[in-house]
Parts: sequence; C-alpha cells; structure tokens
Amino acid sequence: MSDSKKLSTEPYKGTRDFYPDDWARLNTLFSKIRQTIMRFGYEEYNASPLERAEIYENKTSEEIVSSQTYTFTDRGDRKVTLRPEMTPTLARMVSAKRRELPFPLRWFSIGNRFRYERPQRGRLREFYQVDVDLLGVASMEADIEIITLATTILKDLGASENDFTIRISSRSLLNTACSVAGLAEKDARAYTRLLDRKAKMHSEDFAKEVKKLTEKDPLSLIMEGTDADVAREKRELLKLIETLGARGIINARFDPSITRGFDYYTGMVFEVYDTNPANTRSLFGGGRYDKLITLFGGDPIPAVGFGMGDVTLTDFIETHQLPLTTDIKPQLYIGTPDATNIPGAEAFAETLRAQGGRVFVNLTEKPLGDQIKDAVRREIPLFLAYGENEVREDLVRLKVLATGEEIGMASNAVSTYLKTLG
Amino acid sequence: MSDSKKLSTEPYKGTRDFYPDDWARLNTLFSKIRQTIMRFGYEEYNASPLERAEIYENKTSEEIVSSQTYTFTDRGDRKVTLRPEMTPTLARMVSAKRRELPFPLRWFSIGNRFRYERPQRGRLREFYQVDVDLLGVASMEADIEIITLATTILKDLGASENDFTIRISSRSLLNTACSVAGLAEKDARAYTRLLDRKAKMHSEDFAKEVKKLTEKDPLSLIMEGTDADVAREKRELLKLIETLGARGIINARFDPSITRGFDYYTGMVFEVYDTNPANTRSLFGGGRYDKLITLFGGDPIPAVGFGMGDVTLTDFIETHQLPLTTDIKPQLYIGTPDATNIPGAEAFAETLRAQGGRVFVNLTEKPLGDQIKDAVRREIPLFLAYGENEVREDLVRLKVLATGEEIGMASNAVSTYLKTLG
Repeated sequence: MSDSKKLSTEPYKGTRDFYPDDWARLNTLFSKIRQTIMRFGYEEYNASPLERAEIYENKTSEEIVSSQTYTFTDRGDRKVTLRPEMTPTLARMVSAKRRELPFPLRWFSIGNRFRYERPQRGRLREFYQVDVDLLGVASMEADIEIITLATTILKDLGASENDFTIRISSRSLLNTACSVAGLAEKDARAYTRLLDRKAKMHSEDFAKEVKKLTEKDPLSLIMEGTDADVAREKRELLKLIETLGARGIINARFDPSITRGFDYYTGMVFEVYDTNPANTRSLFGGGRYDKLITLFGGDPIPAVGFGMGDVTLTDFIETHQLPLTTDIKPQLYIGTPDATNIPGAEAFAETLRAQGGRVFVNLTEKPLGDQIKDAVRREIPLFLAYGENEVREDLVRLKVLATGEEIGMASNAVSTYLKTLG
Repeated sequence: MSDSKKLSTEPYKGTRDFYPDDWARLNTLFSKIRQTIMRFGYEEYNASPLERAEIYENKTSEEIVSSQTYTFTDRGDRKVTLRPEMTPTLARMVSAKRRELPFPLRWFSIGNRFRYERPQRGRLREFYQVDVDLLGVASMEADIEIITLATTILKDLGASENDFTIRISSRSLLNTACSVAGLAEKDARAYTRLLDRKAKMHSEDFAKEVKKLTEKDPLSLIMEGTDADVAREKRELLKLIETLGARGIINARFDPSITRGFDYYTGMVFEVYDTNPANTRSLFGGGRYDKLITLFGGDPIPAVGFGMGDVTLTDFIETHQLPLTTDIKPQLYIGTPDATNIPGAEAFAETLRAQGGRVFVNLTEKPLGDQIKDAVRREIPLFLAYGENEVREDLVRLKVLATGEEIGMASNAVSTYLKTLG
C-alpha cells in the first residue's frame, strides 16, 4: 500500500459509473427489451469487446475508423480495437460457422460499444446498445419483421404511435439515383455522407457541396421519380411502407434523406425519430446489408437489422415519462436489538433465503430506531426486529414501513408472506 | 466495400465468441448466482471496463500491473487500463459517494475483466467474474456472511459440501509472523508472494528462497504458535472457522499457506478448492481489505469480499455434472405451406407475441417437411402449419415435436396453451 497522494474518484472520461439504482434502471430496460425480442423467436449471442482491428477497416464508416475508434497495439504486436459497433462481429461469427448454423438466423445482442468521441448530450465514449439482426432472408418480409420488432420494443415500453415516426429510405434507390446522376462509386459515397449531414447543414451549403460532385442532385432524381430505374426502386420501397401500414404500423413514411452512417448498407435503411417537438432527434435505426459477410469469404448472406443505444432510448423514456419500475430491492430488513442477536438473526435469515426471500440483516450496533430509519432509506419495504423475545416466543412482528402497520406471525410464516410480495 | 482478401473469422486471441447456446448457458449461470446473492440483500452495480490506469498502480499485485494489464494511451494522452479486476473500481465508486451511501453496503457486480496473459486452461484474456463485497463492517460477522454467501452460491448450483473445501488464513496473522521473524515490509511482501507460489514449487526450492529472506520461516512461526502475538491472531482465525462450523459450514479449514495474489488484503483471506482428486484447483477466493479505500482519501472503510471467475466455475460445474438448464428457446415454430401465407402467419404470430408467446415464423420457401426438420434442429418444441385451411376453419393443429402428437385447437386457444409451457 503506497502513501502517494489521493487519487481522483472520477470515472474515465466519457464513461459512466452505474450505482445500484442506475444499474437497476438500465437492467430493467434491457430485460423488458429482451422479452420483446425473444417473443419474436430471436436468440442472444455475445463476443468480447476486444476485436481484431482489421474487421473494421473499409467496412465501418471512414470517419469512425480513422478518428473514432479505440485502437491500440497489444504486447504481441496485434492491432486491437474496442468494438465501436456489433455488426462486423456478427458478420465474423456467422461467417465462421456458416455451414453449421440453421438459417435464417434471428439473433440479438445487448452490450457495450466504444467510440472515441468528444462527450456530449446523447454521445458517450462507452454506451450500451441492443443489436437485432435477421440473416438469410432476402425478401421484404424480413425488412417488415425487423421494423415491426423495432416498433414493438417502443410500444412495449409504453410509447404510442404518436411518440415516434419511422423514416425509411433505401441505399439501392440512392445508389441508382447516384448512378443516373453520373456519380462514380467514390463520389456516390461522398454524396451519401453529405446527405447524412444534410439536416445539420444550411440548405445553401448543401447545394454548394452537391454542385462540387454533380450537376444533377440525386435527391431530386428520387423526388421526381422520372427515371425508370429510380421509379422502380422507389415503387418497391413505397410498397414496403404500404404493407407496414396494412399491418398496423401507421407511423412509417418515406424520407429519401435517410442514409445511415455506415458504408455497408445495401438496401432498405430506416431511422426512428422522436416526435417530441422540443427534440425531434433520431432515436435509433438500421437497415439491410446483404454483402458484409462476404468480407470473410463465401457467398453473400442477405441480412437486415438495427441497433438501439441506451442513452437516446433513456432520454426518450424520460421525455415521454414512460413507466419503468425496478423490483430488485431486498424485501425484508432484519434488525438486531443487540449485537449478540446477530448470529440468531443470520440463522433466521438463512431459512428465509433458502425459500427465496431477499433478506438484509443489520450487522451494526445502531439502536433499533436508527435501523428502522436505515431500512426506509434503503427502500426496503418490511422491517422485523429479531431479539431474545422473538426467539423465545417464536413470534415475530413484521412492520410495513410505508404504513407503520405491524403484523404478528409465527416465524415460520414469514417466508410465505414474502412470497406474496414477489 | 473493399475487394481486399478474405479476413479471418477468428476472435481476438484469448477471447471467446458466445454463440446463442454458449451465451444462454453463461447467462443461466449468472442468473442463478444473481438470485442467490440478492437473497442476501445485495444490490448490483457496474462501471465501464475502461479505467484510469493510475487506480491500479501500487494497489493490485505488482506482477499484474507491470505485465498483465491492457494499458494504453488515448488520443488525449490519458493512460487507460482495461480493468483486470473490479475491486479498485468499487473502491473508487464507494469513495466518490461515501457521504451519501448508506453503510454497510452490500454490493455485487457481474461482468468481464481483462488480463494480458498467455491463454491456457482456465486462463483467458477476457473472462467474466462475479464480485461480491460487504463494506462498512469490521466484525467477524461480515467475514462469516461473505463466506456463507460464497458457499451458498455453490450449493444453489447443486454442489454438496463434499465437492469443495474452503481454506482460510489471515494476512494480518501472516504479517505478524513476518514481523516476528524480523522481515521488513518489503521483504514481508516478497515472502507473501513466495508463499503464494509455494504449491507450485519444490519444497526444497521454497526453503532455499525463504532462507534468502529470513532465518526463521514465518510459516513455521504460525504452525508452532508459540509467539504470543501470533498465537492471538491464530486463535481469532480458528474462532471464525469454528463459528462457520457451528452455522453449518463444515468444510472450512485453516491453511496458513493461503495468501491471495493482491497486495491490498489486510485480514482474513480464503480460497475455495475443488475436491475432485483429478483436479484439486482453486475455484475462487477473497478476503478482507480494510485500507484500499483510503487511496482515494478519507478514513478507512472496512471491507470484505470475493471474486468468482466464470471459467473455473464452469469447469467445476462440468466436472461435478451439476444441472444447468436453460429455457430461452422459442416455444412455437409457425410453418407456412406457401410464401403467400407468410403475412397471415406473421399476423397470427403477433397476436401470440402480444400475449407473451415466443414465436418463430418461417420466412423461407422450404417445403413443410423441411420446415418441421428445421424446427427440430432449432430445438423448438411445437410446430404449427398456418395455411389457407387453418385461416378458413379457424382451427390449428399443434404438433408436439418430441412425440409427434398433434393437438387440434381454436386459434385463440394457442396462447393459453403456450403459457402452460412457461
């Protein structure tokens, strides 16, 4: 133990400490989301956040790889990246076992992702994300299922259709329009990135930047829909939106400015927006990426999915005051009139725990009154003093702390009572 | 999308990919352990695996910090370490809110830890660990609770007392013996590390190394117990073991060679060993560390806890063939005789999901027979074909795949049937 000067108690910049109440809230959120996803027949997978750096090169967006990843060289001279997103890992894992896995795969993962960004509202260096993917189905039915699942998550959290909209476009529609506008692949990528930033730019600046790339703005080509190839792609996308409407998802609409940041998307892309007029921000999004898996060899595997970050989702829940109750506190606080009662109290607690009760035992020498206050502060609903009298008479009094009510019962009835609390 | 050569599908060296069955097993394990811990009134916390490097310097064992951590410098010139263990993070978090938190704290955390080691059996570069700590209680009752909790976890997993032993010693006993043997603090630390390696050394080599430090082996001083200070410390420890026995923990014994690797322990230390004669290895351990929190300023906070890694624990479960059943598969596979039935099947699935059913819908054009085989392969217990007849007659046949039995029922009865499966 060194006698060096005091260390700071701050977490590493851009990361969060999750004290029990914070962690319980996040876990409750994930647990609800997990239940929704599993009802759709999806299974959870995971991997290490440490990934070989090469799987992100040329696949994730250039901006993210060049300046927004945590990449370092390990002592064995391997380039390692802390995963900024899950999709390349998914592609790697699926590719490794593509002969054994039963397609279609319905997979999801919940965990932390890392980006080296300047911390700001809704953006942290470590955030949690739910990633949901459906692999092996090229048809529109897969796009519909993924969008349905995404909206069901929000609805199961208590949101209504008025709380969010789904804006949908298509990368293949955009690519076709770029091609019709005469853009080479490199310029088409530059245009896509420009379009991704459109909402944050002055329209004049956007027009000026477009002019540098092409005379004819691909976005206008999409709006007009006069070119036959563009019109065909547009019709397909509108059919998807129409089908969603017919199946009860009435808050989806076509928005050709939606591109999503990553380069690997090949088809439908969508973003879900909060409708709160004070803050109409993107909550999350996803899309179709039919070629990503070929990076690891073999034939393409059609794939569609989305990723939903905890920070924006938590903001959404708070803004719309959606209920999120956690229920993980101890049920019963056993107080000890005297330190000599602790062994007996622990033994009694053991019998309750053996039957599933969540029991907190006082180990301090505080007076009973202070122990009751302590139980209230910890939000434990029931209190029971366990002293000589209780042992002798085999009768305890449970104090309901919310009301002050006291319930007398035989010691062996307490466990049954706790079970009624859930 | 680049046309570069194929990428390897291997995970980063020393880490694991968790395919759905693997992840389900690990999650089931953690979920059982979490339930046990929560019955003792403990609450879960978490933090980012990215930590400021300084919190490990001089606190964790020298060996781990100097050569076994992932430490790098970020773009802002900050030294960052991927946490090799949780205790320094716990100390940091508790210290940050020491005025607000209600002591004693009963806290636990489950998550990944990182060590830069040569991968070998039971040792990976990323592993998962359950950390349980009780802070604010200096008395033996806290040591007893922590050891009781640790053994209850193993028992709840199905182990019996014959499957493991708890070997207990004390750092303060060892320090006292070192001091009586005339060892300065630096040499006492060297001796402690030597003792930690004793089991892996020839006894002659051990004796030779001890000779370099001191004429009188502190271990012999402990065995003899003739020195008054040593005898007093030893008596206290034997009382702890006796009390554990009186409370039903009969597989604990005194073993003065137990030291634990970390420098921060100050009192009781313990390790739990597998009794399997083929593999009597340490499963996990912990101890008392009453001074760690002073590194962040303020008065000491007495603390005792343990950490339990997933790799050794999984080995233990497999060796002793303890049952660990996972139950997260979809309940029902809805087959579609024809692609035109998919929208109807999805709509029917939606009604079942809205009532909590976990339902997988076929989106392929495989023949029904192949869909049934697919359901079997995915270990989904029930199959239902949803075609024109079913819609017209509002009657479905549920096929129980394990037996081949078919159960006819009205469509709106399926949901109730799924609920009986759990």
